[in-house]
Amino acid sequence: MEERTEISSLGEFGLIDHLTKDNETKNVSTILAVGDDAAIIDHFGRQTVVSTDLLLEGIHFDLSYTPLKHLGYKSVVVNVSDIYAMNATPTQIVLSLAFSNRFSVEALDEFYAGVYAACETYGVDLVGGDTSTSQRGFVISITAIGEVAPDSYVKRNTAQVNDLICVSGELGGSFLGLTLLEREKKIFEETGAQPDLEGQSYIVGRLLKPEARKDIIEYFAEAEIMPSSMIDISDGLSSDLLHICKQSSVGCVLYEDKLPFNEEAKEFAYKLELDPTACALSGGEDYELLFTVPQADYEKIKVNPSISIIGYITEASEGKNIITRGGNKHALIAQGWNHLK
Amino acid sequence: MEERTEISSLGEFGLIDHLTKDNETKNVSTILAVGDDAAIIDHFGRQTVVSTDLLLEGIHFDLSYTPLKHLGYKSVVVNVSDIYAMNATPTQIVLSLAFSNRFSVEALDEFYAGVYAACETYGVDLVGGDTSTSQRGFVISITAIGEVAPDSYVKRNTAQVNDLICVSGELGGSFLGLTLLEREKKIFEETGAQPDLEGQSYIVGRLLKPEARKDIIEYFAEAEIMPSSMIDISDGLSSDLLHICKQSSVGCVLYEDKLPFNEEAKEFAYKLELDPTACALSGGEDYELLFTVPQADYEKIKVNPSISIIGYITEASEGKNIITRGGNKHALIAQGWNHLK
Repeated sequence: MEERTEISSLGEFGLIDHLTKDNETKNVSTILAVGDDAAIIDHFGRQTVVSTDLLLEGIHFDLSYTPLKHLGYKSVVVNVSDIYAMNATPTQIVLSLAFSNRFSVEALDEFYAGVYAACETYGVDLVGGDTSTSQRGFVISITAIGEVAPDSYVKRNTAQVNDLICVSGELGGSFLGLTLLEREKKIFEETGAQPDLEGQSYIVGRLLKPEARKDIIEYFAEAEIMPSSMIDISDGLSSDLLHICKQSSVGCVLYEDKLPFNEEAKEFAYKLELDPTACALSGGEDYELLFTVPQADYEKIKVNPSISIIGYITEASEGKNIITRGGNKHALIAQGWNHLK
Repeated sequence: MEERTEISSLGEFGLIDHLTKDNETKNVSTILAVGDDAAIIDHFGRQTVVSTDLLLEGIHFDLSYTPLKHLGYKSVVVNVSDIYAMNATPTQIVLSLAFSNRFSVEALDEFYAGVYAACETYGVDLVGGDTSTSQRGFVISITAIGEVAPDSYVKRNTAQVNDLICVSGELGGSFLGLTLLEREKKIFEETGAQPDLEGQSYIVGRLLKPEARKDIIEYFAEAEIMPSSMIDISDGLSSDLLHICKQSSVGCVLYEDKLPFNEEAKEFAYKLELDPTACALSGGEDYELLFTVPQADYEKIKVNPSISIIGYITEASEGKNIITRGGNKHALIAQGWNHLK
């Protein structure tokens, strides 16, 4: 039988000690971490960047097919992704959790193992937090702190007409992974049949263990690229590109044949009679970076195999459109994830 | 009939626009606030302080007797209180909310009115956040950012033997307010009788609209006092003083007759046959500052009517004790609020 230590046997402060006993800080800017009323950070000469996310069981994740370790990892990833989307480097996180009594100390250890693994990958320090019981379910709140050289951050509202629209990685995989796991869950509930994930490790991995694009930000620094605007894709390409257009008061043209797909994901989409383009436009949680650059940066962008040029920015009066493979023009509409629906 | 606008009629981004449309920033360090992937803060030459809290309906607050505006105010207060407890000045907050469909836009407006009022009182800027639905109840996550002159922050683990133990304000009021409101709620549920809060506005106010001790931190700067250790009282005087003792490897002596009480609170305690001293020691959520200073600061502390000297720090070997009015010595025990029980 698996070991199960009741959380109440440790008490609140015992639990915090237990979960943070191996916490080692990596950033020189981390002066004081867990264990006081607040953490102290030293960002002399750099600007501080802050982002926060609140994730709830049953809304943002389903523990019936999400291992807690992956959930811990992903919770950090979605938050540091927002810091990268500012062209900044994440340095610290604070993490708060609430959980009902169905969770054991071992379950929280699994979650924290994922959190620490992500801290290692992205070079961030866990510097504080809060723990509490909940009446039902698992609640995660993460705030990430980062730093950026003065005035080197990149906003959403500064895209310029004629800029190239670029995206990192491949799109739609996470949405397809979610579709697969939801389908297998339903089959399991109805028939008891074990999930068939054969050959689908790519899309399942995109959903359960996404990565934030640290490498792209590092490439920008190395190649001396300063994007004119940037956002991370959490709600879907359409929805997030429309944010850039609205906030920058510009229009856009996307080319369907330029959208980057993974072959495995595309095959799975066809199997389900889903349109891969629709998955790329409207599927959320890809955590790729969507950004614009001046045309002068074309050569620098072209040589990076992780970046695709998918369209360009137009005057607002030209609207927001996608040109299909067949050459037809359609208006882009936001159909991203909307947690308020 | 009261107006009720469904949150779904605005959508997620419409809701954020609605809730933050009057948000004006006050701090020069706030470079970029709500509306992008992250906020940008400039703390050149100052150290950044970060604290976070997660508050859940049914665990941390009861909406049957907590007005949403007060809840918004208090959510900010509990978090900036942690920043003051580091001897720092809060400058920004990020706020995330999750709520079920029983909440309307008007209800969220009430909550935000309280948040903005507290931002005004404490001079902090709201710079970001996240909103989401929940399956049940109201979830609040706040992270506060502050600043402090280099190495002027005050920790919990640096109290010295013979230091004076000091506390701001009065103790136990919030716990008595909670006891009163819980009792009236029970009476209402059983008999339908309306609450009788006659003459109890002090203790109810201490629970529902506490204030953080900005004034004490300002007095420290003015009088050139550098506490040797500090914590804010959220779990109760005993529990929080034991944190200081444990982390500083010291003991303490408290004097029962030095503990600061409010007269109205004391009378209400007697009415309920509760011991006011027990309320002061174990009642939580007073959000007063508990700190230690070298004896050399005695004169500076004595002249501030908002500060009481309640004991002194001893060698660890002497234990952690309270001397009663009758002259008896008892071991201090932590009986603070424990949200994990």
